[in-house]
Amino acid sequence: MTAAEAARRAFDAKTKPRGSLGRLEELGVQIAEIAGSPDPGPLRAAIVVAAGDHGVAAEGVSAYPAEVTRQMLANFEAGGAAVCVLARAAGAALRVLDAGVGEPTENIANGPAMSREDASAWIDRGVGIAEELAAEGFGIVGLGEMGIGNSTVAAALTAALAGVDPAAVCGPGTGLDEAGVAHKAEVVRRALAANSVDPSDPVGVLAALGGFELAALCGVALGAAGNRIVVVLDGFISSAAAFVAARMQPAALAAMIAAHRSPEPGHSVVLDALGLEPVLDLELRLGEGSGAALCVPILNASLAILREMATFEAAGVTDAGR
Amino acid sequence: MTAAEAARRAFDAKTKPRGSLGRLEELGVQIAEIAGSPDPGPLRAAIVVAAGDHGVAAEGVSAYPAEVTRQMLANFEAGGAAVCVLARAAGAALRVLDAGVGEPTENIANGPAMSREDASAWIDRGVGIAEELAAEGFGIVGLGEMGIGNSTVAAALTAALAGVDPAAVCGPGTGLDEAGVAHKAEVVRRALAANSVDPSDPVGVLAALGGFELAALCGVALGAAGNRIVVVLDGFISSAAAFVAARMQPAALAAMIAAHRSPEPGHSVVLDALGLEPVLDLELRLGEGSGAALCVPILNASLAILREMATFEAAGVTDAGR
Repeated sequence: MTAAEAARRAFDAKTKPRGSLGRLEELGVQIAEIAGSPDPGPLRAAIVVAAGDHGVAAEGVSAYPAEVTRQMLANFEAGGAAVCVLARAAGAALRVLDAGVGEPTENIANGPAMSREDASAWIDRGVGIAEELAAEGFGIVGLGEMGIGNSTVAAALTAALAGVDPAAVCGPGTGLDEAGVAHKAEVVRRALAANSVDPSDPVGVLAALGGFELAALCGVALGAAGNRIVVVLDGFISSAAAFVAARMQPAALAAMIAAHRSPEPGHSVVLDALGLEPVLDLELRLGEGSGAALCVPILNASLAILREMATFEAAGVTDAGR
Repeated sequence: MTAAEAARRAFDAKTKPRGSLGRLEELGVQIAEIAGSPDPGPLRAAIVVAAGDHGVAAEGVSAYPAEVTRQMLANFEAGGAAVCVLARAAGAALRVLDAGVGEPTENIANGPAMSREDASAWIDRGVGIAEELAAEGFGIVGLGEMGIGNSTVAAALTAALAGVDPAAVCGPGTGLDEAGVAHKAEVVRRALAANSVDPSDPVGVLAALGGFELAALCGVALGAAGNRIVVVLDGFISSAAAFVAARMQPAALAAMIAAHRSPEPGHSVVLDALGLEPVLDLELRLGEGSGAALCVPILNASLAILREMATFEAAGVTDAGR
């Protein structure tokens, strides 16, 4: 019997109509399988926030100036950003990674963001972080990001990997108006023209159209999946990084849970491509791992049910509703 | 400036694009208004689980025998039921109320469930519980229930108050098959025929078609709203009790938050009638306050953002995205 089968049987023996905890039961079964245990118990969670800068910001694709990435990095370190508050509230640790803040990638509208070697190096860095988290006993990792211009990069990556039109994956990001969104789609179109990528070569796509923080998060996802750690996707940008990871190692997809659905149109394109149904739908469009942090208590609640709830037999409750 | 306006301004000053925390910001603003403070801080939460028995269970409207209500009452008291686990996980207190377990209401298919005096007495009992919670410093109360047959009662109440056909509010409950659901709708139809109720008299409707635990929860909702406590609705049955409360005192509606949307069709009828958009959609159909408990960490996360997150000014982050 697999861990998933054992967890499903355990849920069925609990004092409730079968399946009546809906998604909570499905999540518990999935996490049991990821952890390789029918009763993993509440798991320690960490949110990894990777921050990076992007040459494409020079194209005027964000409502905020590029300097904000560095300012927010300081805000993460000082504990004042949204994800800091939400991670604390969820009892999750926060790990902040400076992935080239102040040292932007090249402008994808003109050519590749980085070399293939750089992409691989940042992926390896992310894998290393996941391995550190595994060694420290973490069982859940949320993917968070910050980087002015990175919703444009995520749009380019998604358009290339999913084979969709730029207009289908470009949205307001942190606050563009309609004209700004149209301009962003045009920049993505230029990026796809300037970089002839092969969707069957995800590392090549990442090097051409990605960013350092996305490459690092791709590595975190791969390293976590390889170490039986649950990978919690946040919004569009972290999900685009996970999309690359899933294309590199399809088996990694089994470790992924989508925390929420962002109103950013590209996010639904990624979620559909990965076949993931989000846990929450709270119209979050901040990134940083904010939605992943909000999801953590729900995941641990499913594991608490598995561990702590009484069975029909133990509680002496008539089990008539098979 | 109202507490809601002050909270909205405070959210707007935080280091994030305005509105980018979506529902989380709306919830924080609503809770600020309920609490009458622009910064209520994380609030202590309690789940009140009221259990009662129903004469209509004799009509064979549940997949479980009536004895399960008493067995589950013991399970609540022993800490083994789902809501016990989920309340602990959320850091919420649990209050269990025996609302006539083993002493069922009359069968609504044949006439009124209880006298008007009994309905009022159970409402008062619920108000008293809310006042105790207020005195103890609780700021959030979740409505939970248990009672074999009570989804039939909730369907009858909802059909009468919302003026919809029984078929629109009858679903599988804890596990009926299609024939069982059709039979349930027929029983509700008989109940509506046996009790000529006036929808503009919600206490009369409650006495005719309700249950002791629903009357008590109606009172908890009224008492909480009157004491600036956030009222968190759970599934169909607790929401039907809140529906009665909102018809008795329309101002109480402002204190209500719908934790989740149940797949039970009557739940959406109640939520639409009340104009409430649920926070979660996890296909929960257990009741007990399980969804309300899962919602509590999200509500407190919104208040943590309000209290703890840095402002653009304090963090020295450029605020370009007004």
